[in-house]
Amino acid sequence: MNQPLTSASNSITLRVKLSNQPGVLGHLTAAIGEAGGNIGAIDIVRREGSFLVRDLTVETAGADHAQTITDKVREVSGAELMNVSDRTFLLHLGGKITVTSKIPLKTRDELSMAYTPGVARVCQAIYKNPEAAYNLTIKRNSVAIVSDGSAVLGLGNLGPYAAMPVMEGKAMLFKTFGGVDAYPICLNTQDPDKIIETVKNIAPGFGGINLEDISAPRCFTIEKALQEALDIPVFHDDQHGTAIVLTAAFLNGLVVLNRKAGDLKVVVLGVGAAGTACSLMLHEVGVRNIVGCDRQGAIYRGRKDMSVEKAEFAAWTNPNNEKGTISELLRGADVFIGVSGPNLVTLNDLKGMNKDPMVFAMSNPDPEIDPEIARSVAAIVATGRSDYSNQVNNVLCFPGIFRGALDCQAREINGAMQLAASRAIASVIPREALQPEYIIPSVFDPNVVTAVAKAVIQAAQETGVSRRRAVTET
Amino acid sequence: MNQPLTSASNSITLRVKLSNQPGVLGHLTAAIGEAGGNIGAIDIVRREGSFLVRDLTVETAGADHAQTITDKVREVSGAELMNVSDRTFLLHLGGKITVTSKIPLKTRDELSMAYTPGVARVCQAIYKNPEAAYNLTIKRNSVAIVSDGSAVLGLGNLGPYAAMPVMEGKAMLFKTFGGVDAYPICLNTQDPDKIIETVKNIAPGFGGINLEDISAPRCFTIEKALQEALDIPVFHDDQHGTAIVLTAAFLNGLVVLNRKAGDLKVVVLGVGAAGTACSLMLHEVGVRNIVGCDRQGAIYRGRKDMSVEKAEFAAWTNPNNEKGTISELLRGADVFIGVSGPNLVTLNDLKGMNKDPMVFAMSNPDPEIDPEIARSVAAIVATGRSDYSNQVNNVLCFPGIFRGALDCQAREINGAMQLAASRAIASVIPREALQPEYIIPSVFDPNVVTAVAKAVIQAAQETGVSRRRAVTET
Repeated sequence: MNQPLTSASNSITLRVKLSNQPGVLGHLTAAIGEAGGNIGAIDIVRREGSFLVRDLTVETAGADHAQTITDKVREVSGAELMNVSDRTFLLHLGGKITVTSKIPLKTRDELSMAYTPGVARVCQAIYKNPEAAYNLTIKRNSVAIVSDGSAVLGLGNLGPYAAMPVMEGKAMLFKTFGGVDAYPICLNTQDPDKIIETVKNIAPGFGGINLEDISAPRCFTIEKALQEALDIPVFHDDQHGTAIVLTAAFLNGLVVLNRKAGDLKVVVLGVGAAGTACSLMLHEVGVRNIVGCDRQGAIYRGRKDMSVEKAEFAAWTNPNNEKGTISELLRGADVFIGVSGPNLVTLNDLKGMNKDPMVFAMSNPDPEIDPEIARSVAAIVATGRSDYSNQVNNVLCFPGIFRGALDCQAREINGAMQLAASRAIASVIPREALQPEYIIPSVFDPNVVTAVAKAVIQAAQETGVSRRRAVTET
Repeated sequence: MNQPLTSASNSITLRVKLSNQPGVLGHLTAAIGEAGGNIGAIDIVRREGSFLVRDLTVETAGADHAQTITDKVREVSGAELMNVSDRTFLLHLGGKITVTSKIPLKTRDELSMAYTPGVARVCQAIYKNPEAAYNLTIKRNSVAIVSDGSAVLGLGNLGPYAAMPVMEGKAMLFKTFGGVDAYPICLNTQDPDKIIETVKNIAPGFGGINLEDISAPRCFTIEKALQEALDIPVFHDDQHGTAIVLTAAFLNGLVVLNRKAGDLKVVVLGVGAAGTACSLMLHEVGVRNIVGCDRQGAIYRGRKDMSVEKAEFAAWTNPNNEKGTISELLRGADVFIGVSGPNLVTLNDLKGMNKDPMVFAMSNPDPEIDPEIARSVAAIVATGRSDYSNQVNNVLCFPGIFRGALDCQAREINGAMQLAASRAIASVIPREALQPEYIIPSVFDPNVVTAVAKAVIQAAQETGVSRRRAVTET
């Protein structure tokens, strides 16, 4: 049988009571191994008479696989399965973020400065000059992560409660990678007007708004209205974060393959939030022949039954007004961008492309085509997955872009700042280190966030959207 | 001249360069002392040739006093004033709270459990059972501190930006005293309908809503509408927090003076948010003769030009339908409750009261009557200030009441829970330790929050508003 692909995200901890005889642990680990479980740590919890209680951490391929493994463990003689815990769920118990005070409040003096009566003077200073909120409150460093839960990951419309774990995870990433204080706000409405109104109303205490997992085309309207209404950055990460990282990868891909953007035909499968933003940004860096494609096939001028957004998309893309299926569109194309769903592209489709194509199959967790298969044809393959090379991951962008925007107290995150972020991400890999399997830096590369923040600040200052002229501190 | 009342909340740090000769520091400290400054720490910053740079922390009575002191320091020969910093403002730089990740994200495995792809399974579990959000997200421990900045402390309508330092301070107190993750949400609207709509929309991620510094009578409408709409506690602290702590003090005052609530006449000056709530709660514990008073005098049935709220108040208070000024109403009264403004009551007014009255002069920072003066007549004096005995401070209530409500996943904070909180606060002082100067526990008494939380959980369970039957952990 095929060895199942196990991962930490599906790992379980088995608590087992073992009779303290030679060989029992061996039988147990063998049983787990035969069932395809990948054993990590084995700890002793305690001794109980002639028994040993142990915790075994086992990576599985998912819930069904975990069940198979535990069933096998139950059959091992001399071993009693006491408890099975899902490590991912354990990690989520009680939430993943916490709000803490920066200052101890152990004495009356501390209380009197942080709270009443001392705080009153600070309030009055901000009342006289509201911009002082940037110096004297958390506004300087805070971002609201706003979602209505209408497009949670690739899972669909799960609503605000089920969206919370993603938004908390994002807040963790904001802090860990960018030092940003981000708080999740999950909305009990999916009406665009109400979302706009609500975000406008809660904005004063925040230095920026990160919109997240809001479905297209609602996300376009919501973002645009908020950008017009607010004097702080409003950034829909599913659109621009993806586009910025994809473009960074694309720019490095051009270097590796020694090509020019203007010479290439790019086919984009999926023209929702991410696909539209990726297309716009590729156009920005010089690609002229972009063809979008949805479930009905090519997006072209004159196609019937298109949404307003797709008609707009058709207006500036597809210069030859091509029609047809994704297979037909890929014939003679140089670049495939997938932001759609699993397994929508075949090896034959790729074989129809021009020589040495670039394939960005970013549907997550299952790409448009298996990257191993794609590699047999493509010169460069990138996906959204962490277990293959060239991972297009938004975490390369949003911590740094907001770090920069907050540090210069930007009024918006404009196109110039986005492009600067993209070029900064690309620049983190030295030119001489670039190769087909390494066009995107690792998410753990500490140079990314500083490079992005610096570039974003400079672009903000050049385009006049920075409140601070010189940024000396963070 | 009178020695000005200095405090840490008005303290400054003077950085001074002193020629390294005997006597210079003495001249400097003498000058500060003569100007009425209260010197705390004196630190050496560095040596510069034959000079010493020192930081002197000095408590002042306010901005004007600080100016007088620095002017005097400038006159000291051999001392050069390099810099003056306001310690309260320094403490506020960049905000007072921070959002942090509970889990390190240093490896791909950690990322894959806290964020994608592992988080997807957690999202799906909550989608199937939204109540699981209490276990798997920060909802279990989170409170939104919502203000529109319409009544910031006693300073008036300063708006949302100027309200932020108070709300951040409150979040610090929530965490430090109650272990609650609270986040400030300051609203860019003062329209009650829009506030209600906004709070309803952001509620899913929170386990409770603390309304704060919203002016009366809007606060009553807003709180009521939200309580009806939401299935989590909505608690306007300015009303109920004050009432709960005041009632705790009152109950202990009854014990100290060996009196019964039903025998007493209570006059309440100020019938806004706090005054109304205090009156309701005193009625709840048995006071029958409560008379409210505003700037126009007594609140009585038939008075003209009263708001709907005051007419309602008149309907169940003032049994003898008394009219008149605060001085007239206090004649023959036993208890004065002030939640109004500074210096509205005179010594003569107190002299008109029955023997050994209780005086709760809670206007902050300046009470309705100087507590030193009140003491010459009253058997018990309490204020809102930390520098006198018997401080009625909401921090005795809100951390514990929300701790309890969150731990039992309460749907609301009802009257029974509020009364339980009040009795719990009162009970923290052992009966034999009660005395006129000690009817309210210290805000730093660690027994308060546990006593309040425990009592609140029990009351929630008895009244059927607790989602959890047994609460074993916090």
